Amino acid sequence: MSQTRFRGVLVPVLTPFRPDLAPDREAFLAHCRWLLGQGADGLAVFGTTSEANSLGLDERVELLDYLIDNGISPDMLMPGTGTCALPDTVRLTQHAVGCGCRGVLMLPPFYYKGVSDDGLFASFSEIIERIGSDALSVYLYHIPPIAQVGISLGLIGRLLDEYPTSIAGLKDSDWSNTLSILTEYPELAIFCGSERFLLDTMRNGGAGTITASANVNPANIKRVFDNWESDESDALQAGITKLRVCFEGRALIPALKAIAADHYESRSWSIVRPPLQSLDDADASTLVAELEQLGFRMGASR
Amino acid sequence: MSQTRFRGVLVPVLTPFRPDLAPDREAFLAHCRWLLGQGADGLAVFGTTSEANSLGLDERVELLDYLIDNGISPDMLMPGTGTCALPDTVRLTQHAVGCGCRGVLMLPPFYYKGVSDDGLFASFSEIIERIGSDALSVYLYHIPPIAQVGISLGLIGRLLDEYPTSIAGLKDSDWSNTLSILTEYPELAIFCGSERFLLDTMRNGGAGTITASANVNPANIKRVFDNWESDESDALQAGITKLRVCFEGRALIPALKAIAADHYESRSWSIVRPPLQSLDDADASTLVAELEQLGFRMGASR
Repeated sequence: MSQTRFRGVLVPVLTPFRPDLAPDREAFLAHCRWLLGQGADGLAVFGTTSEANSLGLDERVELLDYLIDNGISPDMLMPGTGTCALPDTVRLTQHAVGCGCRGVLMLPPFYYKGVSDDGLFASFSEIIERIGSDALSVYLYHIPPIAQVGISLGLIGRLLDEYPTSIAGLKDSDWSNTLSILTEYPELAIFCGSERFLLDTMRNGGAGTITASANVNPANIKRVFDNWESDESDALQAGITKLRVCFEGRALIPALKAIAADHYESRSWSIVRPPLQSLDDADASTLVAELEQLGFRMGASR
Repeated sequence: MSQTRFRGVLVPVLTPFRPDLAPDREAFLAHCRWLLGQGADGLAVFGTTSEANSLGLDERVELLDYLIDNGISPDMLMPGTGTCALPDTVRLTQHAVGCGCRGVLMLPPFYYKGVSDDGLFASFSEIIERIGSDALSVYLYHIPPIAQVGISLGLIGRLLDEYPTSIAGLKDSDWSNTLSILTEYPELAIFCGSERFLLDTMRNGGAGTITASANVNPANIKRVFDNWESDESDALQAGITKLRVCFEGRALIPALKAIAADHYESRSWSIVRPPLQSLDDADASTLVAELEQLGFRMGASR
């Protein structure tokens, strides 16, 4: 049975760590609950913002089980499952589908560079065939600045032709490319990778956004989604764009964790795994102060 | 007890697959034995050429166990153990050290781009501390064209200062950088990433080469190493360089597997895992014919 597609504001959930760098699953669960309470339409756990690629395979499996065992509905979950290696991607995807997750967000294999669309098609194809389940909904993940290996328009078309029920959508972190995808593949659920482009995405037939800063500003972003056809949409968009620019002034993941540490009054929330580095205390305080001057408080909808 | 350092010609061993894309462990073992018989000084299994980043974690562990259980001495093994994620790298490294491998070849975490030397230092440091064994010999793996995340001169220095017994050497796939490392860190065992630079590496105090084409041309490359101080060294180097250029005319990994398929008279030897793609039959035949015209046959020392 194919899944209903995601739509709206999805959050690539930050993964909190303890001082020994182990995932803090209780804090992770609490943050997921908070995000859903703020109106998030889905939790794209284990995305780039989640430092998923710094998590071990076993850790990802255990954290997903923990969320579901503690009442997070798999209908709200779109875990990232794409790794460099076919068997590891199959393992994570199989597990997510087995848990009943409504979709998975799938990076292409990203170690080998300059690979052909034929090679990437073969890779996605092999994964989809091995899962062999109608319950699989793949959201392709195009993030060329980080993965370096991208998903071309032509590759999307070939995958859609071959697997029309399995290929449900795409997250595009390259806005210069998103409009072409929206035009070419209106049947897909397309999510922009930054809320800066949320209104433009919706006006062009997109499904919403999967954006890092929804970790700290979910309600305001959701408000743009809910009101994109209203007269106030441009003003609302301007508000969330101004904040995004402020987050982006720093390394984004450490900055978001610094804001979460302030919100949850938990120093360890600011911990990132190497090779990322936390903001230093001074930088974190400056950021929180700057955001206060803009009238921003995490979770407060204006 | 710290390990004796590797020196000479090491092979990033190709990983053969069956038609169902599972590793063909018998063919892998046979190839390892053949390489040692040809005079290879070490087997850098699970390198880039080995498609290691397309292998699952469990597959790497099982293949290493299989080699050792079947008589390949761990003293000849330098498995690649660096992944994107701290726990996975620790798991593979711990396993290799536990097996008695004389060294490990370690990529930096390579998903997040533009990370700082501080972040990379923290990453290697955390791994080394978690292994916590004098038997650990790390060969750092600098391959910026593929991993995108490199290992700077400054980072090498910091790691050497902090872990002088654990940091044993470096494989450098960027020749423009190798001379600086040879000059700056003569205490390290430095391997160039292509036999094209073997003679120059040896003349500048290096330890040898870890090179893809040693999979098919080990004896000739070893002859350059053995005779680098002799009068015939330049002529010998010219011979292996001419062949390397011929291999490089195609996608290197598929080309080497095509040569191995011809040598072992096994069609399945040419299989690569997606996202890589095998040479088509015509291209493979042309390659083998071109090499024959150069007087080359896999394993035949001239």
